[in-house]
Amino acid sequence: MTDHLVAALDIGGTKIAGALADDGGSLLVRAQRPTPAEGDAESVMGAVDAVLTELASSPLWPGVGALGIGSAGPVDAAAGTVSPVNVPAWRGFPLVERAGAAVGGLPVVLVGDGVAMTAAEHRLGAARGHDNALCLVVSTGVGGGLVLGGKLHAGPTGNAGHIGHISVDLDGDLCPCGARGCVERLASGPNIARRAVDGGWRPAPGEDATAAAVAAAARAGDPVAIASYERAAQALAAGIAATATLTEIDIAVIGGGVAGAGDVLFAPLRRSLRAYATLSFVRRLTVAPALMGNDAGLVGAAVAAAAVAAGGRSGALRAKAAR
Amino acid sequence: MTDHLVAALDIGGTKIAGALADDGGSLLVRAQRPTPAEGDAESVMGAVDAVLTELASSPLWPGVGALGIGSAGPVDAAAGTVSPVNVPAWRGFPLVERAGAAVGGLPVVLVGDGVAMTAAEHRLGAARGHDNALCLVVSTGVGGGLVLGGKLHAGPTGNAGHIGHISVDLDGDLCPCGARGCVERLASGPNIARRAVDGGWRPAPGEDATAAAVAAAARAGDPVAIASYERAAQALAAGIAATATLTEIDIAVIGGGVAGAGDVLFAPLRRSLRAYATLSFVRRLTVAPALMGNDAGLVGAAVAAAAVAAGGRSGALRAKAAR
Repeated sequence: MTDHLVAALDIGGTKIAGALADDGGSLLVRAQRPTPAEGDAESVMGAVDAVLTELASSPLWPGVGALGIGSAGPVDAAAGTVSPVNVPAWRGFPLVERAGAAVGGLPVVLVGDGVAMTAAEHRLGAARGHDNALCLVVSTGVGGGLVLGGKLHAGPTGNAGHIGHISVDLDGDLCPCGARGCVERLASGPNIARRAVDGGWRPAPGEDATAAAVAAAARAGDPVAIASYERAAQALAAGIAATATLTEIDIAVIGGGVAGAGDVLFAPLRRSLRAYATLSFVRRLTVAPALMGNDAGLVGAAVAAAAVAAGGRSGALRAKAAR
Repeated sequence: MTDHLVAALDIGGTKIAGALADDGGSLLVRAQRPTPAEGDAESVMGAVDAVLTELASSPLWPGVGALGIGSAGPVDAAAGTVSPVNVPAWRGFPLVERAGAAVGGLPVVLVGDGVAMTAAEHRLGAARGHDNALCLVVSTGVGGGLVLGGKLHAGPTGNAGHIGHISVDLDGDLCPCGARGCVERLASGPNIARRAVDGGWRPAPGEDATAAAVAAAARAGDPVAIASYERAAQALAAGIAATATLTEIDIAVIGGGVAGAGDVLFAPLRRSLRAYATLSFVRRLTVAPALMGNDAGLVGAAVAAAAVAAGGRSGALRAKAAR
């Protein structure tokens, strides 16, 4: 039995996934429950407990040295609480304390799901070998995370890299967050679909108006569909270039359902990036599709926990582990 | 004689300032020459050599352990070169090598002037005690620097925090950098003055159309002057909120001539910040005027050098010191 194992949780609005993993991020044992997203706070915690109990029944459990949690945001890693937008019963829910008690007092590391995905892409995916990287999830929302100076930069509350809610259009449309012209308001899947519909595009009979359907139309040459992806790409490019100008990242890795559009997104994104990343020190900035797929959240939570278990702690992670 | 001293240079388009400083950033001996900005590369280097020679004549010189250089940008700290916009003869000029030879092979640390100002405000000024901070210079241009996790985050090339050239208006006016809607294009002193003139404001007879004159008019109640500062404040707020959302800074410190407008700038800036910094983890974000004045560049270069001389090196600074 080794003590170089960690437990990992990926908390989303649809499912609560768990795993035991080695310190390289390989998933060895899995458990999963649906998220009772409309239930009360204790029923959601009950699903977490069920996943942890199933993991704890593994013969590998005694080798586990830490628990990593990646959660839908917002999270507050400094306070140890989560308030996932899609889980209304959890507002400021003390997940670090509750999960810590459930695993017998092991150190717990909490990060936002964008930060977890970033940890996974940096360790094993498209950002591997890059000391300064931004990873994005472009899906129903737009999230992200940063690697700076070779280390995950989670920030004091575990939310750093949240590129979806930076404004690239200061007089633009109101975003649900309260600001205007956020990257998410221009580039998320629902907004890509909405903009195409507003422009006159319609899905095939019986098909939903999704970003994937718009991507299929764009591949078939529909100019409204192409324009909707070009606008999303422009917003992402402005946001990615801003991040590079501020932090000197040299790669942006893009995952999530919208990245599945492939060249429909990436070709205009690469063109727009040249228009916004103009200063000498950001001109080498590149973009690449994410490689880690659906396991990114779990792998990332494991990698973040392994860093703490091994003592290789960033400032941001140390505070959380000390709880 | 102590060996806890450093030499510092502040390279600008108007003057080349130098100093010997202790490891707390106190300036002990000064030297200065005008920048022969229209001269050839060697005449500009001649002015640097003259400043260093004067410093080396001090009886304190044998205690100097490193040289810090803050330079007008762009700089490339990885290559050891500078290309200050206002010094046309220096393009990719190997300043680290040349200055290193002039000081007998002492370690040399090169950072951009925005990063240097940030080091000074973090050590001794308005960002003191903040582990995560953005410092800005709003003047003829708009520059800046970052402190993350308690340390100066210069980035691999020494340019991180360059908020002036992030786009907050992706369809906006073309910026000289080639992008559109950059913070500098909306918020720099010359752009504040231009926008006021475009709106019909005129300076008093015999007075120039400067941002300071627009600020005086705003204080006297001129609505066009007030509106021009409000627009600059909105752009700065969007950029500062973006930086906070990406990196979890909790304070933005603003220096440079435009900050001298005081409440004409800061009152609308604080209002706009609430409109753009909306997520839970950035709502405590504050802004404050810079405290270090004209010495910020020299003090910051000294502080950056002292970090290297003491061995407390960030990743970014280590690379430069190793040259």
